[in-house]
Amino acid sequence: MNVKLTTASGVYAIAPTPFDPQGEVDFGSIDRMMDFYIRCGVSGLTILGVMGEAPKLEAKESLEVARRVLTRAGDLPIIVGVSAPGFAAMRALARESMELGAAGVMIAPPSSLRTDDQIIGYYRQAAAAIGEEIPFVIQDYPLNFTVVMTPKVIREIVRENPSCVMLKHEDWPGLEKISALRGFQAEGSMRPISILCGNGGLFLDFEMERGADGAMTGYAFPDMLVDVVNLSRAGARGKAHDLFDAHLPLLRYEQQPSVGLAVRKYVLQRRGAIASDAQRAPSAAISAQAKAEVEFLLERLARIDERAAM
Amino acid sequence: MNVKLTTASGVYAIAPTPFDPQGEVDFGSIDRMMDFYIRCGVSGLTILGVMGEAPKLEAKESLEVARRVLTRAGDLPIIVGVSAPGFAAMRALARESMELGAAGVMIAPPSSLRTDDQIIGYYRQAAAAIGEEIPFVIQDYPLNFTVVMTPKVIREIVRENPSCVMLKHEDWPGLEKISALRGFQAEGSMRPISILCGNGGLFLDFEMERGADGAMTGYAFPDMLVDVVNLSRAGARGKAHDLFDAHLPLLRYEQQPSVGLAVRKYVLQRRGAIASDAQRAPSAAISAQAKAEVEFLLERLARIDERAAM
Amino acid sequence: MNVKLTTASGVYAIAPTPFDPQGEVDFGSIDRMMDFYIRCGVSGLTILGVMGEAPKLEAKESLEVARRVLTRAGDLPIIVGVSAPGFAAMRALARESMELGAAGVMIAPPSSLRTDDQIIGYYRQAAAAIGEEIPFVIQDYPLNFTVVMTPKVIREIVRENPSCVMLKHEDWPGLEKISALRGFQAEGSMRPISILCGNGGLFLDFEMERGADGAMTGYAFPDMLVDVVNLSRAGARGKAHDLFDAHLPLLRYEQQPSVGLAVRKYVLQRRGAIASDAQRAPSAAISAQAKAEVEFLLERLARIDERAAM
Amino acid sequence: MNVKLTTASGVYAIAPTPFDPQGEVDFGSIDRMMDFYIRCGVSGLTILGVMGEAPKLEAKESLEVARRVLTRAGDLPIIVGVSAPGFAAMRALARESMELGAAGVMIAPPSSLRTDDQIIGYYRQAAAAIGEEIPFVIQDYPLNFTVVMTPKVIREIVRENPSCVMLKHEDWPGLEKISALRGFQAEGSMRPISILCGNGGLFLDFEMERGADGAMTGYAFPDMLVDVVNLSRAGARGKAHDLFDAHLPLLRYEQQPSVGLAVRKYVLQRRGAIASDAQRAPSAAISAQAKAEVEFLLERLARIDERAAM
Repeated sequence: MNVKLTTASGVYAIAPTPFDPQGEVDFGSIDRMMDFYIRCGVSGLTILGVMGEAPKLEAKESLEVARRVLTRAGDLPIIVGVSAPGFAAMRALARESMELGAAGVMIAPPSSLRTDDQIIGYYRQAAAAIGEEIPFVIQDYPLNFTVVMTPKVIREIVRENPSCVMLKHEDWPGLEKISALRGFQAEGSMRPISILCGNGGLFLDFEMERGADGAMTGYAFPDMLVDVVNLSRAGARGKAHDLFDAHLPLLRYEQQPSVGLAVRKYVLQRRGAIASDAQRAPSAAISAQAKAEVEFLLERLARIDERAAM
Repeated sequence: MNVKLTTASGVYAIAPTPFDPQGEVDFGSIDRMMDFYIRCGVSGLTILGVMGEAPKLEAKESLEVARRVLTRAGDLPIIVGVSAPGFAAMRALARESMELGAAGVMIAPPSSLRTDDQIIGYYRQAAAAIGEEIPFVIQDYPLNFTVVMTPKVIREIVRENPSCVMLKHEDWPGLEKISALRGFQAEGSMRPISILCGNGGLFLDFEMERGADGAMTGYAFPDMLVDVVNLSRAGARGKAHDLFDAHLPLLRYEQQPSVGLAVRKYVLQRRGAIASDAQRAPSAAISAQAKAEVEFLLERLARIDERAAM
Repeated sequence: MNVKLTTASGVYAIAPTPFDPQGEVDFGSIDRMMDFYIRCGVSGLTILGVMGEAPKLEAKESLEVARRVLTRAGDLPIIVGVSAPGFAAMRALARESMELGAAGVMIAPPSSLRTDDQIIGYYRQAAAAIGEEIPFVIQDYPLNFTVVMTPKVIREIVRENPSCVMLKHEDWPGLEKISALRGFQAEGSMRPISILCGNGGLFLDFEMERGADGAMTGYAFPDMLVDVVNLSRAGARGKAHDLFDAHLPLLRYEQQPSVGLAVRKYVLQRRGAIASDAQRAPSAAISAQAKAEVEFLLERLARIDERAAM
Repeated sequence: MNVKLTTASGVYAIAPTPFDPQGEVDFGSIDRMMDFYIRCGVSGLTILGVMGEAPKLEAKESLEVARRVLTRAGDLPIIVGVSAPGFAAMRALARESMELGAAGVMIAPPSSLRTDDQIIGYYRQAAAAIGEEIPFVIQDYPLNFTVVMTPKVIREIVRENPSCVMLKHEDWPGLEKISALRGFQAEGSMRPISILCGNGGLFLDFEMERGADGAMTGYAFPDMLVDVVNLSRAGARGKAHDLFDAHLPLLRYEQQPSVGLAVRKYVLQRRGAIASDAQRAPSAAISAQAKAEVEFLLERLARIDERAAM
């Protein structure tokens, strides 16, 4: 696949890995899920991330999931999460994924990194390990990884590594970071890269206005994310916020640590995207009361949509 | 003051400490702020917490702030944050605050605690240090303190310490914790305590439905929090959510780590509650762009309020 | 293999994974290293731990290393580190290792665990995942994993899981923990398990006197550890301390975080146990000055040994 | 006092704060302790650090302790720990201490700092807050504070702040950091500062050889530290290591986290430096068995000293 990820925009959905209730990968649901995302209008997909339960898969399962997704993807660019404690496993998955047709890979920093130099050095080593012809995405997610990257550190990673094409922006608070990076580009001190935002989309409304190219996140209504990105890019500010705000109560509910994935899979199942909301152990389940709360939020959302349609 | 905090309900606002632009405590603004909170209908106040910039005050300043607040408080119950690295300073501030008329004190766990026994032991020692006649509130805020308390640990602290009267609930995710604690009460394994919820109110809608008694947080529209609590207690579920959802975009914006206090003080200044949004160093400032975003959210909020009033 | 690890004693050496300078697994050195350890008089080996650079291996490499070690092990019991972010990979490696003849497996807690219940629950799930017929070792290493297990938590894990046979004790400070666990056994509240101590052996002298069964660590003079354990078990307290103290300057030097493995591999290479001190990236190298310091310590050690031999 | 701390060398003992068994500051023991340290030949003292239980003192107690120490100090330079969550308390204690005759102050970074810029910015603000005429010491202690400073970050702090005069070096591993900083000086990219090493002295033997000016730590035999520093500076390498190695078993025992202070105070009491080994709550006590182990180590140490004296 010959995609220029540096100019990627729109929504790259973070896809979950579907399991059956026995904890086996549900390949049939992968196909169904792919169709769902394509119907939603996403611009690409990211698989095997944290929310894809990648660390719970065996190496050969990861590859099988990547193969199934890539077979079904058609022209849709697929980014494969290849984060691993060692470069051997990272390189293996990166190379195999690219051979299968992936558009690029995503690399998260190990939580032991602290100083600027450690972070920059890690990405230098990682880029060399996978090979400089493979485009990679920086995953900047301090709440989860405890690694804090300043805009200057990101700029240095971009400068050192021509194969760095995108930032998955997931800092919190993170609006000023987008402005700082776009400022670097404006002043010519950093070449342009794509910035797609995570955190469930919790600040997507303003992230677009700060200069993000779109979202890379797993909120169970990717169609809404697509619309917000399009409205925002078209300058329809009020409509973008109206739509976003209507989803915010549910989006916030899904954006809870640990239990959030259970909520997300539950809604995706409700929407027919996957057959089961099962996760592989260890996992956090959703209680009956939480399900009722999600149902309540879905009902309210449906009523708002109806009103908007009138 | 003779308040039964174990049955406290409604909204206890987390009050900021007002500073002037030179970084001195602005005592005039304390008076103004007190009047503002009373107008908003809060049931009580909590001062000298994390968001009150308590760690930046000298010991004698903390006491002066407490004195000014308590002088102006009238019948309003005031809870004073007394968290400190050592019990000497904790006891001194606790005793002086109670003599000035405080209703109770709030104690956060030091971030070095890890095991259940360490947490339980710490509260046992702290309760003994301040004296068993002083009512205290547990501050359960893992995101900030990195100390995770299970419902069973909280139950044990309540069981061991008759002077434990309230939980400031600030876990995230936290809904199941409320249900678990209320379940303990229902089965008779824990005596009733008040549960007031924090995190800027981000889940107040459902927290009320899970059994919380109200909120203890610093969102700059405490009047909205009061209304949501009252609507929820009156069983007006739809109206409670409608009101809450209207504020959620701003509430989420204010609930960002580190920069959140700057947003909160900016809005409180805009609403006339304090004269300046200045913080004492070290602090995170609010950018011009962020201010514009807050203004945009305030405008949208005003329009929703107008529509609701029609 | 039919070894009763619950009564294991002596020294279980933590074996490194030998690499050649290109970063490939050096299988020839595995054989040589096995012979070295057997000559040193160890009672067993533990492979694929943190110091074995296990996270840097691909899944199939881990299995190949295990196979080579087990082929050469003869009657020597081998424990295989199977810690993994998910249970699928953990189970796969555990089962394959046992089929190849391993005596048991070692499981470290993921660093996300905080509360007592989370830790106990994790080991319950892990034991079920690998199968209850596979003996497992708890790795209790708070400095590295940030998970703190009280003696009561360990007792509960032992109580719940009949397949839990050993504690790799690596808390720091840790002497009181050994006394507490042996106290549980003495009072009958915990069945006996083997306790082997890590941390490079930095407190092995007193750990033996507190009731440890021996050491499980990777200090590059396992022969010394064997002698200290034997002397201590024979009641020769003074001699045990004399021998231990002679090694303490080097042992402390090797027991530095991150750079320690480089020191260890350097000394093992110097002693002929492995062909190269190479590590796989990412790794911390040893400087020329550090090498000179190690050489200086080795010389001093040699002189003490000579004096002792006179 | 007019001391040039930038060229300070020798041993600056980290002094504990003596308490009586009821937890009150024991001012009589402060005098006795001062005389002890002066007899031991220390070049200076550091008070109110972590091991001085500073966070457990009330603000006015800290000042009283500083006053008593400074009254008794004569010409001995005293460094006062002024680390505080806010700059108001830091400035107050720094200024009052300097007025009482302190030679300088020591500032630790708050544990929330992560990036290079955050650390550099913090010291810039702190130096401005206390006033640029007050000499300050950087406390670089990652194990305790979780803040990691690279040599380049330290160089930048030194460059920006003319009042930065010394590094309390307490990184682990830390030998390469000393070499890197001395390398900066040699190449002219950093002005000279004093480097005194902590961590109980666990690597003092080699730290001296890497270019440290001495030790700043609290090991209960400061006389030994003084001798090692003097021997090392005199080029008597073998004798320096012999003396150091004789103490290493006890030194290592004292250098345990949390329980270490109890060991230290116990030995200082045994040596007559303070009247009681009491700590203020919260604290970790020393068990009867641990006391016996310390006594055993003291006996062995006495026998070695006797042999050396023969």
